[in-house]
Amino acid sequence: MSDLPKRIEIHEEGPREGFQIEAGPISTADKIRFCEALAETGLHDVQCVSFVDPRRVPGMIDAVEVAEGIRQRPDVHYTGIALNLKGYERAVLSPLHITGGLQMSTSNTFSIHNTNKNNAETLVEQRRQMEFFQARGIPVESAIVMTAFGCNFEGAIAPETVRDCVGELLALAAEFGVVLDRVRIADTVGWGSPLGVQRVVGAIRDKWPDLKLALHLHDTRGTGMANALMGLQMGISSFDSSCAGLGGCPFAGNQAAAGNICTEDLVFMAEEMGIETGLDLDALIECARMAETIIGHQLPGKIMHGGSLTKFRS
Amino acid sequence: MSDLPKRIEIHEEGPREGFQIEAGPISTADKIRFCEALAETGLHDVQCVSFVDPRRVPGMIDAVEVAEGIRQRPDVHYTGIALNLKGYERAVLSPLHITGGLQMSTSNTFSIHNTNKNNAETLVEQRRQMEFFQARGIPVESAIVMTAFGCNFEGAIAPETVRDCVGELLALAAEFGVVLDRVRIADTVGWGSPLGVQRVVGAIRDKWPDLKLALHLHDTRGTGMANALMGLQMGISSFDSSCAGLGGCPFAGNQAAAGNICTEDLVFMAEEMGIETGLDLDALIECARMAETIIGHQLPGKIMHGGSLTKFRS
Repeated sequence: MSDLPKRIEIHEEGPREGFQIEAGPISTADKIRFCEALAETGLHDVQCVSFVDPRRVPGMIDAVEVAEGIRQRPDVHYTGIALNLKGYERAVLSPLHITGGLQMSTSNTFSIHNTNKNNAETLVEQRRQMEFFQARGIPVESAIVMTAFGCNFEGAIAPETVRDCVGELLALAAEFGVVLDRVRIADTVGWGSPLGVQRVVGAIRDKWPDLKLALHLHDTRGTGMANALMGLQMGISSFDSSCAGLGGCPFAGNQAAAGNICTEDLVFMAEEMGIETGLDLDALIECARMAETIIGHQLPGKIMHGGSLTKFRS
Repeated sequence: MSDLPKRIEIHEEGPREGFQIEAGPISTADKIRFCEALAETGLHDVQCVSFVDPRRVPGMIDAVEVAEGIRQRPDVHYTGIALNLKGYERAVLSPLHITGGLQMSTSNTFSIHNTNKNNAETLVEQRRQMEFFQARGIPVESAIVMTAFGCNFEGAIAPETVRDCVGELLALAAEFGVVLDRVRIADTVGWGSPLGVQRVVGAIRDKWPDLKLALHLHDTRGTGMANALMGLQMGISSFDSSCAGLGGCPFAGNQAAAGNICTEDLVFMAEEMGIETGLDLDALIECARMAETIIGHQLPGKIMHGGSLTKFRS
């Protein structure tokens, strides 16, 4: 396990992932309380909301109120995402830390379901977004390749297709003089396996050995944490995850799409392997239990139910 | 991933694990139906019941009726376990495939909670059991080391302690002229991490390079499948697992002890990595859904809810 990173950074997506897919209604006050609690665990990024059409994602109807209600710590980025220019126009008016992002799916059909645009239309939209970001002075830091391991509409996805999407995103950024901080590889609908992670990461690394990659994994078929382990073994040091394993994708063509890998389970695994996270595991577990109380049904996180080892070791 | 096995064998423990810990009551007919369905998936071993004191494990009150009720396929071993001589005396009267097993916990305190005997008393009992097995012509095939990665009573367990337990079990078998087919390493209470698996397997391999090891993993803290991946990467080709992730340990000192790693999730991961299991994944998923219907609440297996990729690939 010689490529293991010494330290990983975790981008917390639980609030946005959870509020987006849970039946609710979840009160605005509870959403704010959850975001604020997460910011006390050592996380530097907490993704709070998405600025999307509430007719499509009813749980985001109070995105602005949530964004405005959070009492912000100075050392934490409270972020929000948008899928299109209209969303970004709302996002930049909020007090959240908004960065520009580029996105592309390996699957044209998934793109249409996710954003009502095919891949060619998505590229056109991305150019308009880049112009918008630059006009407003919004930094562009990352790009994401969705459905990188397979798609419920288009089936298996070749690692070379993912690599080519990364190339398109890098080229698009370069057109605007932007060097991306990292590219996120997303197993949007849970097709990933450890072998898939090895192949996809390998295909991208072969072409861009120094490009920083992040993994965004969903645990739809039970391999989420094993996929994360393979990522660690390949030296990946940046992960998106969700407290309590909240989430899922409302447009994935599969009602049973599971949430992201669970933040506190990932933190436990990393710390047990000697990999620093800088996070307070027991505080994260308390956040996960808060989420379960707020949501009102059992969430998939494991260590929130099994309990940490702290009390047994002390 | 060069040490990956070409094929793994899976010992299904879902019925015994589940009937042992679920609140129930579960009807005898349902228990039989579940065992019979599992035997149609390609599994060669289905652990159906344990012959334990039903005052301590009420779900096993009908162990004899379950054992007698199963219509057996000739190519499947329907097995049962016992924790002591009294249990074995009942077990050998059943139509199940009963083999002798040796067992030891790395933790004296766990042993007392699990079997009312400390480790020294357990060794004495094991000798009496070996005499019993040999007098009855019962084959002795495997030994298990419990709490191999940590114990809720005694805390962290050094890999050398596990190695020494393996040594004691091998010596005990040798006293009776028995060569064990394999030694099972059990993460009974979910302390395992991929690093722990690497260290424990490594410590045993250093001393007995050719000893066949099996892993018995519980997913108490979310690392179960990652631990299995590390096992695969170290060439482990034998796993205990539970359909739907049924199970837990009633005597582990932690009510939240989770079930074994999930059979069908493990099969999915292995097959996606090109490792043969000889099992019908979709049939296993149907068994898991049957288990959920019988038990009456959601079970932790993932692919049973996410669905296999079969329909998307065809």
